[in-house]
Amino acid sequence: MLYFNNDYDQGTHPEILQRLTKINFDHQVCYGMDPHSKRAGELIADACGNKDAEVFFIAGGTQTNQTVISSVLNNYECVIAAKTGHISLHEAGAIEYSGHKVQTLEQYNGKLRAEDVDEYMNLFVNDSSHEHMPQPAMVYISHPTEYGTLYTKNELEDLSSVCEKYGLKLYLDGARMAYGLMAKNTDVTLKDIAKYCDVFYIGGTKIGCLFGEAVVFSKSKAPKHFITSIKQHGAMLAKGWLAGVQFEVMFENGLYFKAGQHAIDMAQKLSALLVEKGYKLFVESPTNQIFVLLKDDEFKALSEKIVFGFWEKPDKEHTVARFVTSWATKEEDIQLLADVL
Amino acid sequence: MLYFNNDYDQGTHPEILQRLTKINFDHQVCYGMDPHSKRAGELIADACGNKDAEVFFIAGGTQTNQTVISSVLNNYECVIAAKTGHISLHEAGAIEYSGHKVQTLEQYNGKLRAEDVDEYMNLFVNDSSHEHMPQPAMVYISHPTEYGTLYTKNELEDLSSVCEKYGLKLYLDGARMAYGLMAKNTDVTLKDIAKYCDVFYIGGTKIGCLFGEAVVFSKSKAPKHFITSIKQHGAMLAKGWLAGVQFEVMFENGLYFKAGQHAIDMAQKLSALLVEKGYKLFVESPTNQIFVLLKDDEFKALSEKIVFGFWEKPDKEHTVARFVTSWATKEEDIQLLADVL
Amino acid sequence: MLYFNNDYDQGTHPEILQRLTKINFDHQVCYGMDPHSKRAGELIADACGNKDAEVFFIAGGTQTNQTVISSVLNNYECVIAAKTGHISLHEAGAIEYSGHKVQTLEQYNGKLRAEDVDEYMNLFVNDSSHEHMPQPAMVYISHPTEYGTLYTKNELEDLSSVCEKYGLKLYLDGARMAYGLMAKNTDVTLKDIAKYCDVFYIGGTKIGCLFGEAVVFSKSKAPKHFITSIKQHGAMLAKGWLAGVQFEVMFENGLYFKAGQHAIDMAQKLSALLVEKGYKLFVESPTNQIFVLLKDDEFKALSEKIVFGFWEKPDKEHTVARFVTSWATKEEDIQLLADVL
Amino acid sequence: MLYFNNDYDQGTHPEILQRLTKINFDHQVCYGMDPHSKRAGELIADACGNKDAEVFFIAGGTQTNQTVISSVLNNYECVIAAKTGHISLHEAGAIEYSGHKVQTLEQYNGKLRAEDVDEYMNLFVNDSSHEHMPQPAMVYISHPTEYGTLYTKNELEDLSSVCEKYGLKLYLDGARMAYGLMAKNTDVTLKDIAKYCDVFYIGGTKIGCLFGEAVVFSKSKAPKHFITSIKQHGAMLAKGWLAGVQFEVMFENGLYFKAGQHAIDMAQKLSALLVEKGYKLFVESPTNQIFVLLKDDEFKALSEKIVFGFWEKPDKEHTVARFVTSWATKEEDIQLLADVL
Repeated sequence: MLYFNNDYDQGTHPEILQRLTKINFDHQVCYGMDPHSKRAGELIADACGNKDAEVFFIAGGTQTNQTVISSVLNNYECVIAAKTGHISLHEAGAIEYSGHKVQTLEQYNGKLRAEDVDEYMNLFVNDSSHEHMPQPAMVYISHPTEYGTLYTKNELEDLSSVCEKYGLKLYLDGARMAYGLMAKNTDVTLKDIAKYCDVFYIGGTKIGCLFGEAVVFSKSKAPKHFITSIKQHGAMLAKGWLAGVQFEVMFENGLYFKAGQHAIDMAQKLSALLVEKGYKLFVESPTNQIFVLLKDDEFKALSEKIVFGFWEKPDKEHTVARFVTSWATKEEDIQLLADVL
Repeated sequence: MLYFNNDYDQGTHPEILQRLTKINFDHQVCYGMDPHSKRAGELIADACGNKDAEVFFIAGGTQTNQTVISSVLNNYECVIAAKTGHISLHEAGAIEYSGHKVQTLEQYNGKLRAEDVDEYMNLFVNDSSHEHMPQPAMVYISHPTEYGTLYTKNELEDLSSVCEKYGLKLYLDGARMAYGLMAKNTDVTLKDIAKYCDVFYIGGTKIGCLFGEAVVFSKSKAPKHFITSIKQHGAMLAKGWLAGVQFEVMFENGLYFKAGQHAIDMAQKLSALLVEKGYKLFVESPTNQIFVLLKDDEFKALSEKIVFGFWEKPDKEHTVARFVTSWATKEEDIQLLADVL
Repeated sequence: MLYFNNDYDQGTHPEILQRLTKINFDHQVCYGMDPHSKRAGELIADACGNKDAEVFFIAGGTQTNQTVISSVLNNYECVIAAKTGHISLHEAGAIEYSGHKVQTLEQYNGKLRAEDVDEYMNLFVNDSSHEHMPQPAMVYISHPTEYGTLYTKNELEDLSSVCEKYGLKLYLDGARMAYGLMAKNTDVTLKDIAKYCDVFYIGGTKIGCLFGEAVVFSKSKAPKHFITSIKQHGAMLAKGWLAGVQFEVMFENGLYFKAGQHAIDMAQKLSALLVEKGYKLFVESPTNQIFVLLKDDEFKALSEKIVFGFWEKPDKEHTVARFVTSWATKEEDIQLLADVL
Repeated sequence: MLYFNNDYDQGTHPEILQRLTKINFDHQVCYGMDPHSKRAGELIADACGNKDAEVFFIAGGTQTNQTVISSVLNNYECVIAAKTGHISLHEAGAIEYSGHKVQTLEQYNGKLRAEDVDEYMNLFVNDSSHEHMPQPAMVYISHPTEYGTLYTKNELEDLSSVCEKYGLKLYLDGARMAYGLMAKNTDVTLKDIAKYCDVFYIGGTKIGCLFGEAVVFSKSKAPKHFITSIKQHGAMLAKGWLAGVQFEVMFENGLYFKAGQHAIDMAQKLSALLVEKGYKLFVESPTNQIFVLLKDDEFKALSEKIVFGFWEKPDKEHTVARFVTSWATKEEDIQLLADVL
């Protein structure tokens, strides 16, 4: 069987396993207050070009979104997101469970448009009954998006401007950020993200950590007592250093970026191979998720030899399949795929 | 100034004031456990054609929606509503504050279509990742809708069927129910509502109570310890009998229906007058809310003599105005309006 | 039957009924934005000796406590209260439902001691694991307490000082405040309350309003978008002016204070009568709640002729009964009671 | 420096690291739906003597308590716990954040007494105002307790009986369960726990997993859609198999029990050593937490050579210190300690 199912179905980088083994019996300070987490935070702040950035580590993505959003928002506030945003669709109502509405706007290949936010907010502030609505206080975007697409630097800047105009915080979900940063032709760097976003997270799980996401408050300060909020959401690990150590390994010698680059290289080969074999791409994704339009019987036939994802059915005869490369994809698997297609 | 602004900007029926005065110094059982509330509940159950219906009184509409929805739903469940549903737009995120997502579907003049619910649920149950989404457990509709439109009996039946098919509860927000029941050409009776809906509320505030909404569990039983949930939501009045007494007056001699009939009669005259004067109706509303398409300067000019509502701007040159009649609208005001138009 | 059961089992002052009748058909601005509510707020601010005080009207006590506390607190914060505080015991977990812990401390006849708060906070801030606990941010007291007792001015000042020392807000639940202000020998005025408390509410329901509590932010400003929070909690009445009008009547000619004075006079007579008849008072209450220690058979015998409350069983042979006078207690009822005892 | 600080400041068992390394590049089913988690669940169900037990894996303890308690309780329900229960004191209000009151009762060396629960419930159900209080629906205990003490089988049985009497679920927090099961003289086995408790969790973090707690529904079924609730609480790991694999290693050859035994052996030696050296034990703890009463200057002096915990100050001259052994404590450290004392 060939696996192009997702980017989180395998363990971790050997360097991470080695480091965890090396320090296994060291006595650590618990709850994320340890020197490894501190150093990882400094490495990340440095990579963000902002020494004052505050960095916290949380185990998973939904947990991170819930903890960050509900800690930044006041009780009467809501968050704006694209219809296809992860918090809108696939987090089991975690944001609403914490008390906040997710106000959805139209999406364009997974992206939110600054002008739509502007128009929505303009209507909102001019609506005489707006005190009867939750007050928008944050814009949530993902980069790459759920469709593997990327914002340009200009688009980020525009979103940032419209957020400033209306006093909204800009929050970027970077579950797959590494794959976005290393994409061909992107003009968005980690420093840009740190410059334009009030808060964002650098995903670890999908780039080869066992678990762990790094929350970075860059333009804004972390909310008061954010540590207490993390604990209150059940998001504090007793052995918090484990996340810190993994990000230390990731950022001390550029492993984070190399792992992203590898997956992009593999995705480019995969994508080229699919086109060469006559398949039609459904979205032009510059990152590690490749969406292919298949006839239903093709989908079925390929499923017998390859593990990949069902994405959606655009019509009665076709299915969109998602092929994903990762930090761990082997070049030989692309070659084996060529034989199967 | 002429007032066609809404149906809740005046006090209450003289009969209600008289009754409150009459019993003013009686010693009552508190917290809604009194004989007046009991009798009002029985009168309502009788009007619903279901002696087993359980009736509770709550002060306001948003409070009722929040208390009912969050008490019927389990923590992992969400409620389906039209985009224009009151809980979707104008309750300040009260449902989300209680932890539940409002899953919006398309609206058609304010109405939700059974086939859309069916299609959504069909996709949902066949989506292999549906455990990662909040589980739909209730459908929320309003009757009349926010656009003054009405479901037909067939439409209610279809919604009820699709709800049964997927194990959803059907909840009807009847803030303006009296105006719907007394509309011309409607084939929906209170008994139909009680037959097709698991739970609904009969609005008192907008039909001339000082406050108060009657929650009716008809097809379904009330959730266990619903009294405790009411208290927990801050929705229990110490002097609970006040709501009971008002509904007693409303239902003992048909005042509820007469008040609705009066407003419909006034709305028909108002609507005919507007058409006669050459105005264009924006929605064909059979109830007490009349939506008129005005040029922006007409809107401005009329605003100087008449109090009515801004509804929306469909384009740059026009504005939709909302004229509302009520239980208290005087016939002479329609005549005065004729002079002004 | 004679009624000394509670102070909220009868309707309202005739003046309030008259006023409601008088303005019944006036067209009002809705949702509490009306001139009556504005004027009532000004009258209250004036009585508080603080023209900048912000006043809001909410229908009931539990709703007020939930809305105020959850709006003032951040998500990671908790409120300190006496074990016997109303929010600790009799609000169906409404505060916890809004996400906040009620941290209870020892009570002394219903009162919280400043030194206990000081000691608790001192331990808290010096506990190295205090980031693993909800952060105390508010102290809740009731005046009169649930036992009818009163704070002295010195005690209020001490609580206020300890709150300032630790950055806590002081919140006073004045469900029965009128009965406290008019008690014999109290040195606490409404102006003192407004001076020492960040926020408090003046109860209307128990002093003869149909419903309504006036929230006053005096030392502190109201939280941002408090109107939205009120709506979100379901605590906004469409006919909001009804609460405003009642408080207007209460404060324009001192009815609020006269009504309190009357109940205190009645309570003094009642209390003297009980002592004269050889009954033992359980708590020395200076307000309108009188607690009497009865033998179980006395309790049973009196219950056949008088409606009064069960409070608690201090031992196997005795029961504590609660007799309550109110704004509506008639002097002749005290005389009738003398015959029964 | 010698470390007796806690049982979660070091990594994991070498067998676990080896297994994680061995399967590192295997492609796994995600979100805990993998064969490793399935097998771990079966091994645990088997050890519990209940093949129908349902087992779920969650990353940390507070998260587990929050997810389990808020999923089992209805919105109007509360949980009963000892004053010193972990959910009462050290989880940053996580239970209240999920909407539920923690009703505390007296503790006896960390334990809750069945007769206290009985008395509380008896008063509750006979209190005529109990619909104005959150409805108790669960009893929370920890075994070992926060003081390292243990319930006897009889005590567990009594708690179970009183729970059945009042329709309460019994939930046991087994963060340190292994240390309890392997204690000298305990008559409580894992099968007893599975027999008497509706739901409990077997802690992994404190017995040498990197992270992970195994939730076991034994007497009761798991709540409907518990997977959705896990996701909604942010408690679902993408690489869920990591927890499954660790528990697989723990339970396939008894490592879980051996690790517990080792710590108990070390604790016995430590405890004997302290007594031999003239120190006074503060609580008779049969498990891996040893509480010692030290003079303040002794505490300070020892702190320079040994890392151990501050527990509390029973008076002005003394401090209670907590010494903890673990799955990783080395025998030579006890010997080194002998030299230091």
